[in-house]
Amino acid sequence: MKRVTERRTYSYLGPAGTFTEAALDQVAEAWGQERRPVLNVGEALADVLEGRSFAAMIAIENSIEGGVSTTQDALATLPGLRIIGEYLVKVNFVLVAAPGTKLEDVTSIAAHPVAYAQCHGWLGEHLPRHSHVPAASNVASAIGVLDGTLPAQAAIAPPGIAEHYDVDVLASEIGDNTSAVTRFVLVTRTATPPMPTGADKTSLIVELPNDRPGSLLEMLEQFSTRGINLSLIESRPIGDELGRYRFVLDADGHVHDERMADALLGIRRFSPRVVFLGSYPRADRQIVHYPDRYADDVFVEARDWLRDLLSGAPEE
Amino acid sequence: MKRVTERRTYSYLGPAGTFTEAALDQVAEAWGQERRPVLNVGEALADVLEGRSFAAMIAIENSIEGGVSTTQDALATLPGLRIIGEYLVKVNFVLVAAPGTKLEDVTSIAAHPVAYAQCHGWLGEHLPRHSHVPAASNVASAIGVLDGTLPAQAAIAPPGIAEHYDVDVLASEIGDNTSAVTRFVLVTRTATPPMPTGADKTSLIVELPNDRPGSLLEMLEQFSTRGINLSLIESRPIGDELGRYRFVLDADGHVHDERMADALLGIRRFSPRVVFLGSYPRADRQIVHYPDRYADDVFVEARDWLRDLLSGAPEE
Amino acid sequence: MKRVTERRTYSYLGPAGTFTEAALDQVAEAWGQERRPVLNVGEALADVLEGRSFAAMIAIENSIEGGVSTTQDALATLPGLRIIGEYLVKVNFVLVAAPGTKLEDVTSIAAHPVAYAQCHGWLGEHLPRHSHVPAASNVASAIGVLDGTLPAQAAIAPPGIAEHYDVDVLASEIGDNTSAVTRFVLVTRTATPPMPTGADKTSLIVELPNDRPGSLLEMLEQFSTRGINLSLIESRPIGDELGRYRFVLDADGHVHDERMADALLGIRRFSPRVVFLGSYPRADRQIVHYPDRYADDVFVEARDWLRDLLSGAPEE
Amino acid sequence: MKRVTERRTYSYLGPAGTFTEAALDQVAEAWGQERRPVLNVGEALADVLEGRSFAAMIAIENSIEGGVSTTQDALATLPGLRIIGEYLVKVNFVLVAAPGTKLEDVTSIAAHPVAYAQCHGWLGEHLPRHSHVPAASNVASAIGVLDGTLPAQAAIAPPGIAEHYDVDVLASEIGDNTSAVTRFVLVTRTATPPMPTGADKTSLIVELPNDRPGSLLEMLEQFSTRGINLSLIESRPIGDELGRYRFVLDADGHVHDERMADALLGIRRFSPRVVFLGSYPRADRQIVHYPDRYADDVFVEARDWLRDLLSGAPEE
Repeated sequence: MKRVTERRTYSYLGPAGTFTEAALDQVAEAWGQERRPVLNVGEALADVLEGRSFAAMIAIENSIEGGVSTTQDALATLPGLRIIGEYLVKVNFVLVAAPGTKLEDVTSIAAHPVAYAQCHGWLGEHLPRHSHVPAASNVASAIGVLDGTLPAQAAIAPPGIAEHYDVDVLASEIGDNTSAVTRFVLVTRTATPPMPTGADKTSLIVELPNDRPGSLLEMLEQFSTRGINLSLIESRPIGDELGRYRFVLDADGHVHDERMADALLGIRRFSPRVVFLGSYPRADRQIVHYPDRYADDVFVEARDWLRDLLSGAPEE
Repeated sequence: MKRVTERRTYSYLGPAGTFTEAALDQVAEAWGQERRPVLNVGEALADVLEGRSFAAMIAIENSIEGGVSTTQDALATLPGLRIIGEYLVKVNFVLVAAPGTKLEDVTSIAAHPVAYAQCHGWLGEHLPRHSHVPAASNVASAIGVLDGTLPAQAAIAPPGIAEHYDVDVLASEIGDNTSAVTRFVLVTRTATPPMPTGADKTSLIVELPNDRPGSLLEMLEQFSTRGINLSLIESRPIGDELGRYRFVLDADGHVHDERMADALLGIRRFSPRVVFLGSYPRADRQIVHYPDRYADDVFVEARDWLRDLLSGAPEE
Repeated sequence: MKRVTERRTYSYLGPAGTFTEAALDQVAEAWGQERRPVLNVGEALADVLEGRSFAAMIAIENSIEGGVSTTQDALATLPGLRIIGEYLVKVNFVLVAAPGTKLEDVTSIAAHPVAYAQCHGWLGEHLPRHSHVPAASNVASAIGVLDGTLPAQAAIAPPGIAEHYDVDVLASEIGDNTSAVTRFVLVTRTATPPMPTGADKTSLIVELPNDRPGSLLEMLEQFSTRGINLSLIESRPIGDELGRYRFVLDADGHVHDERMADALLGIRRFSPRVVFLGSYPRADRQIVHYPDRYADDVFVEARDWLRDLLSGAPEE
Repeated sequence: MKRVTERRTYSYLGPAGTFTEAALDQVAEAWGQERRPVLNVGEALADVLEGRSFAAMIAIENSIEGGVSTTQDALATLPGLRIIGEYLVKVNFVLVAAPGTKLEDVTSIAAHPVAYAQCHGWLGEHLPRHSHVPAASNVASAIGVLDGTLPAQAAIAPPGIAEHYDVDVLASEIGDNTSAVTRFVLVTRTATPPMPTGADKTSLIVELPNDRPGSLLEMLEQFSTRGINLSLIESRPIGDELGRYRFVLDADGHVHDERMADALLGIRRFSPRVVFLGSYPRADRQIVHYPDRYADDVFVEARDWLRDLLSGAPEE
């Protein structure tokens, strides 16, 4: 009898060849599975929540494909989601054309307007007299040049384009900012967190009580008094009334770590609303270092000590 | 003898009709002055630094025209800039067409790809069978429809478009998120801060010392121990080495307030690098409230007290 | 068959009639039990540790019978002790004499030297020409006058003296400081804490790690981030090397309170050495008030929430 | 013509030979000046305030001659005093007698009752059958033995006794605690602080605002955020209403240090009442170490930076 393996579907901002797909390419579990290109983050998350997809890859920081605030607000308000992985993609661009095209032949360039603006420096220097033909995406630019639907000889596209289409790369790294990196996360429905790897991060969205001064400090102390470092903090207005904020946080470590579990308890008691987005391996695979005094066994020992106190057992 | 008044130039993300221009429309001092549309934030800031413009209007939060991270990084690294004003623009879209066009005539829609993605919900409901013609900007979409260079019957554009072009508005508020607001700032070369209005904010970019745990808390205490509230905090990786961050901060109050000046001294002593971006009136004109014990006269009284101590004058 | 009840012994700084005995008089459980007068705190604690006494009453704050530092250091270094109750005694003095003596007959006054110094003002005003006959204790003064072994007509003694000896009170409240109060604690061997009454305090001695700046603040945050108020804090040099301190702390609440148990866990993890001295009813019977957000059920709810997170259960 | 030098008077807890006088012996400026023995701390401070003495030496920590709480409360409430020096005296005792007396001749021992209690261990071991004759002070004990007014063969006294009286020392270091040290301060009327030596401390008494939770932490942050270490902290109930506290603080450094002056400004703004008791050389002459980032020039540089900001001068 043959075992039928169900193929899993992964939603991503399409079409094929986007930076988001480059992030999805890094997910070993997604190799050979279904990919579902969508138009925006809302659609990708809806796919997950409504069961059309197992997971969605979405940009969460420094995206040039747009929508980071939207993503953060969606994660803050849609219950039932969990981040299970983080991926980094270097953001840069290539200038591509149909095979045989030369740079000096290029007078019109197809490009997504945001990408176009980011290559302004290089274009001004190397092709000062070109005209711009807008494209619907970083991939549509190349497709339009190849199939003749866009009146241009070359296209600005992500480096991955050459793996999907038969193009010549006329120039590489043409973006003005050569060190830009977009951070993506892979999101599923709520599930048990992946096992700790020692190089993990925990993502949260925390609302502050609005009636207490110093509540931001009080929230951060929940981490600092347990030796936990934050790698991301962003305030976002909640939007219901003036002066109310939520905070998007990435904290070093995993909810299975005693210190993180204890910090989450503190945060939960403190905050009128906290969303646990997940504990998952860091994209950079950097082992999280922390002072010995926040190690798991210190927490266990303290609990033993308290138990002895309460039972009246003699000390030492 | 007639006095010749020099006209000032204001750079903004063009062309005319963008959300950025809608922000510039709010600046009374800019009425009747020169406007210089540019392609991106870098160009706008260069105009200011190199003297081509008196000021630049740039998006700093929640922009759908892109580039907020770029803006923050530019302000963090380019010396010589100062924010002098803040402006809010409601982000929503209208569907426009040449006069006489009816919604049922529309089969193709010209739109900047980011704006197009944000109107996905409305379009799916009202024009499920349309096709998308990409445009280079939120204004180029409408121009292309009017002058026939884009093969579309209607365009997605900012509400302000109707003031610049002879169009019919087929539908309003077609964006998926009806409460989105973009925050803009007006930037000049370094100058004395505008006078306090009582409803001011102060913007800073602060690097944390990287060798000390708890340094984020220590920075925030500089504000909290002077009764100063923060309305924005965002971490940004500095990029030179792993684990180094800078923070973009908006603090309630003006550098002419004693408590803010004192906090800035504390921040300056603490931080390896701090950029004062400016003190300027808040867009929402909300008066800043703070506990009496942080009033200016409390600071003055304390200095008098210390002076008496040092001189050996008897107390009380 | 008759049930034999073992009588318990209570050690106290004697002899009968001292302020310490006045504290012991407040202990209902000690009525009708054995009392064992001792010479100093070390002896009283040794009685408890070596089983000669069930409990010892010792002065812990503001004592005029001496030895508060000694007491604190003893509690910090002797393992196996537990505070089970707190008692306040108003410290004031009376001038007593054999029945029939009149104030104008008094030329010599018997007094413990410390008590004598504290009545300096009254004596200067009312008996400017008296001479001082030193006595070994606040009670020995009166005994010596009555039995003629001290060459004096009157004695300075605690108000309770009149209950033990046949004396006339010539003057009351003759101490210079009429509002002084000594705080006493009743100490037993380590045992389960008495049940919470809602008006409890918890006493600790905590050593700070000496190699970290800000460690005092970090210790105090363990209490403040759980809404716990401190009613006593005193630094004491540990004495083994320069710059090492231990802190004597009284915190509002009982170790059976969730917030206190959680704070103790934090303190234990933080401190190289912490001595739990006990949770016991406050002498003033003031109910401990704390913000609702630190109530027991908030802690329980947070643990439930964390358990759900870890199991992958859907939120809300 | 001869210049007449006025002799200064120093008050101290007498009579000659007390531990307090041993502290006064350490004051070079007091050598050859008048000494005025008094009965208690109140009298000593009154001498200073009313001009009878230039200065008073008083015990402030760990005194066995009594009165530390009284001293702290007096300094907190009497305006017009200033500490100008700190002195440490090792607290131990000798057993003395008239020349020629042998230990085996001793059956009665004259002693101040507090000192007597502190030698309990030694006496129990070496003279188990002695009787106690109370003395009015640690010096009166020896005088009484020498002049025959006290019925004892030996006296417990401070080690300095042998310099003032013709006695034989029968035994040394007979106190139970061989490492006890009393801390004294020299107090004058309000005056300019003595010049910094690099090894200074600053003493303060600070009342906390009673209506704000976390105010103890907020006070301590004023020091920690300027890199200032505390070597003493003690809470004292203010006494006017329940739950109000004042804190006795010793902070490392001098009010002439920028970081200390800045911290004092913060404390003054924060506290409803703060008493500056003085900046003066530490008794242990330990140089105060602090992180470079709290050095004077860092404060000066920050002020220059702020001045430039306000004037609109370009950065860097």
